[in-house]
Amino acid sequence: MSSELLNRLRAEVGGESVITDEDIMGSYSRDMMPIAPYGKPLAVVMPADVEGVQACVRACADACVPVVPRGAGSGLTGAANAIDGCVVLVTTKLDEIVEIDAANRLAVVQPGVVNLDFRDAVSKHGLFYPPDPSSYDWCTIGGNLATNAGGLCCVKYGVTTDSVLGLEVVLADGSLLRTGRRTVKGVAGYDLAKLFIGSEGTLGVITQATVSLRPLPQAPATLVAGFPTTAAAGDAVARIVGEGLVPSLMEIMDAGSIRASEDYLRTDLGTGDDTQALLLCQSDSGGEVARREMEALEQMCRDAGAGMTYSTDDLAEGNMLLHARRVVLTALELYGTWLTDDVAVPRTRIAELMTGCARIGEEVGLRVAVVGHAGDGNMHPTIVYDPSSEDETARAHRAFDDILSVGLSLGGTVTGEHGIGKIKQAWLEREIGPVGMWVHRQIKGALDPHNLFNPNSMFAVHGEHGPEGDNAGE
Amino acid sequence: MSSELLNRLRAEVGGESVITDEDIMGSYSRDMMPIAPYGKPLAVVMPADVEGVQACVRACADACVPVVPRGAGSGLTGAANAIDGCVVLVTTKLDEIVEIDAANRLAVVQPGVVNLDFRDAVSKHGLFYPPDPSSYDWCTIGGNLATNAGGLCCVKYGVTTDSVLGLEVVLADGSLLRTGRRTVKGVAGYDLAKLFIGSEGTLGVITQATVSLRPLPQAPATLVAGFPTTAAAGDAVARIVGEGLVPSLMEIMDAGSIRASEDYLRTDLGTGDDTQALLLCQSDSGGEVARREMEALEQMCRDAGAGMTYSTDDLAEGNMLLHARRVVLTALELYGTWLTDDVAVPRTRIAELMTGCARIGEEVGLRVAVVGHAGDGNMHPTIVYDPSSEDETARAHRAFDDILSVGLSLGGTVTGEHGIGKIKQAWLEREIGPVGMWVHRQIKGALDPHNLFNPNSMFAVHGEHGPEGDNAGE
Repeated sequence: MSSELLNRLRAEVGGESVITDEDIMGSYSRDMMPIAPYGKPLAVVMPADVEGVQACVRACADACVPVVPRGAGSGLTGAANAIDGCVVLVTTKLDEIVEIDAANRLAVVQPGVVNLDFRDAVSKHGLFYPPDPSSYDWCTIGGNLATNAGGLCCVKYGVTTDSVLGLEVVLADGSLLRTGRRTVKGVAGYDLAKLFIGSEGTLGVITQATVSLRPLPQAPATLVAGFPTTAAAGDAVARIVGEGLVPSLMEIMDAGSIRASEDYLRTDLGTGDDTQALLLCQSDSGGEVARREMEALEQMCRDAGAGMTYSTDDLAEGNMLLHARRVVLTALELYGTWLTDDVAVPRTRIAELMTGCARIGEEVGLRVAVVGHAGDGNMHPTIVYDPSSEDETARAHRAFDDILSVGLSLGGTVTGEHGIGKIKQAWLEREIGPVGMWVHRQIKGALDPHNLFNPNSMFAVHGEHGPEGDNAGE
Repeated sequence: MSSELLNRLRAEVGGESVITDEDIMGSYSRDMMPIAPYGKPLAVVMPADVEGVQACVRACADACVPVVPRGAGSGLTGAANAIDGCVVLVTTKLDEIVEIDAANRLAVVQPGVVNLDFRDAVSKHGLFYPPDPSSYDWCTIGGNLATNAGGLCCVKYGVTTDSVLGLEVVLADGSLLRTGRRTVKGVAGYDLAKLFIGSEGTLGVITQATVSLRPLPQAPATLVAGFPTTAAAGDAVARIVGEGLVPSLMEIMDAGSIRASEDYLRTDLGTGDDTQALLLCQSDSGGEVARREMEALEQMCRDAGAGMTYSTDDLAEGNMLLHARRVVLTALELYGTWLTDDVAVPRTRIAELMTGCARIGEEVGLRVAVVGHAGDGNMHPTIVYDPSSEDETARAHRAFDDILSVGLSLGGTVTGEHGIGKIKQAWLEREIGPVGMWVHRQIKGALDPHNLFNPNSMFAVHGEHGPEGDNAGE
């Protein structure tokens, strides 16, 4: 049975596109989340075109073998992790930028294009593709679409879904859905593109996207502010949001993140020893406006109690400061394995979340460093532990869950940008309640009736009941 | 049977909320689109709270009586038009602004709140709710959500869906779905809110929305430019978009619209007799930036061949100029009944669409005036005819369809912001093809299995086939 499927895949998708070598398959079986379960695939299939994707899906549907779609594997929830006996359908070979229509400020792109390559390509036309997840130098557009990825730029420019005009998707029977448009506006029928975006490979395989582009912003000016307490940094964020300022970037680092970054870069960020939190802001408005924005941001940080502020409109220096933020997760590997969480809270509650994380770190006796997108309240508390110790692993899991509890209790969500995948299913149910779960299952059943795509990732398809009650979580 | 339902509705929703007076029912039986079919409802029900909406839906579901949800009735596709024997569920009594959380720049609002009232309320907190459909002084937020309404501001700030964080929706069995969030970002599960937005009352009844707000922009500066040809105006739009300028408003009027507006306002817009198209731009960036933007816009209009340009940063004068644009549809009533179309094309194709509309007007021997949101390519060619003449009506219908054909042939969509409703169903199928139709029917069937909500509006639920072929329209 399996060999029949493999033969058909080799015949229809191409022998070189069907991988059964165990070592190679191993590297396509999981993403970057250490605690997510993963299985052993029957094969890894890497079609080079949409017809190959369709052939693969049809063959797997006929053989009742599940399909797990996958991009570069930079995910942080195990959403692209293999399950036993599945076919991992990798879209990285669909790596063409089909079209850049500068006059209409849009592009058509295949899922395998690396985010940074795409950004670079459109920037040559003076255009800007905003979504920039931390893994932007190796993650692919397909994965970004499947998870509705965010990043550092989204405080001003929105997340992936905000840039998408249309999609091409291979459905569970292998047919090709083209949905959306090339126009700025359009309301012909349901907004199907936005349904597939963020569906984590459970509804179809995205094989092409039409995305809108923005004018390339001005080179950013950068401000760093150090605060004596987390509360003061949170207060600064609240003031900035409350005053209606929209920086193009606003990141926060707690003391643990600052120290890790300094240790890793073997440098002193100049924040002083008593700095407990650091805020990093940029304005890409250019010229006098940027200067005014930077002055206002600096003033608000001072008003909130910043002990140090430093601003620069030198691009290289700004990039260096931003680099200190970007390396935090890598830097934490100095101390052990990291397990990063992803909660978003209303922007006035950031300080409370950080305080909660510090308390949880003390309770479980592990290092919990908090780094996050302060401008949209999306925080990544990161737990450092030794995975070879069963006890530390258990404590890390406990901290991971406790942080989600705090996030929910502050009116937040259990995932701001990473997704649910194979690690937060119980939390999805807790956040959206039984009616929400029922709607998810109905939609999944309607579009993928045989549960072909990424089965039981995000949620188990067999729920208990219909939508007879109101949301339990409310 | 009907009287049983009426008794139950009176008992459970309240006698004063159940209207069966034929005259009153007549005024709730259709929207603003003259050519859309409409029927005679069994009753008009106006619940005052979400429990009333749930009770109404449950009672109708039990009685197998269709429910047509409706806001103020400003729609332009008949989407809210009654069908024979239905219950029209009017949400205008759910008219509370539940919360304005200025610190987190969000608000919670019921569907019956009038768009302008909501804008005014949040502006008192220095905040801005961008979507501003032309009917903003009487349309309701609920209708805006159901149609994913656009408006004049969306060139810079997006359409309704871009402002929505979360929704509360009564489903077909009366259960209450709470979906979305209060945080800026969030990816917990499918993006259900964006599925319901623009679903034109076919999937549920929206009873509450959580929307994000922006800082109130600066008072706009305004530029008017008159062009000797439509092509020159189209060229100006293409230059502006191509140069990466993002005005906060960019509207276009053809000669017919200009003359109608002048006739109606009994004024001379000062464009000169040889002006064939007028472009109206605003910048709300404030101060020096706005001045620079206005200069650049003016220069590009001149470069494209504008015969006159006039700019002002006087707010009252700017509003007066904008008023000339806003009254076009009303002004066209001087000449007869209007039938307005709604196509969106890539922004480089605007001149071609306008030329096509002029040709069609000549062919059918009717006045076709074009007014539209040039900044996002969303045009409203408007046909003036005498509905008492069967022949003129037939020619008006033909022009309406021919304009859609031209729009599609230019890579556009058959609806930029009005929707499909009861007048463009064949066009929806033509635009999105059989696979797209199949997905629509599957989703409708999954969430509303007994076809309770607005049955056969937007599309007929019984399609011919599964998704075996690729999109026909491609």
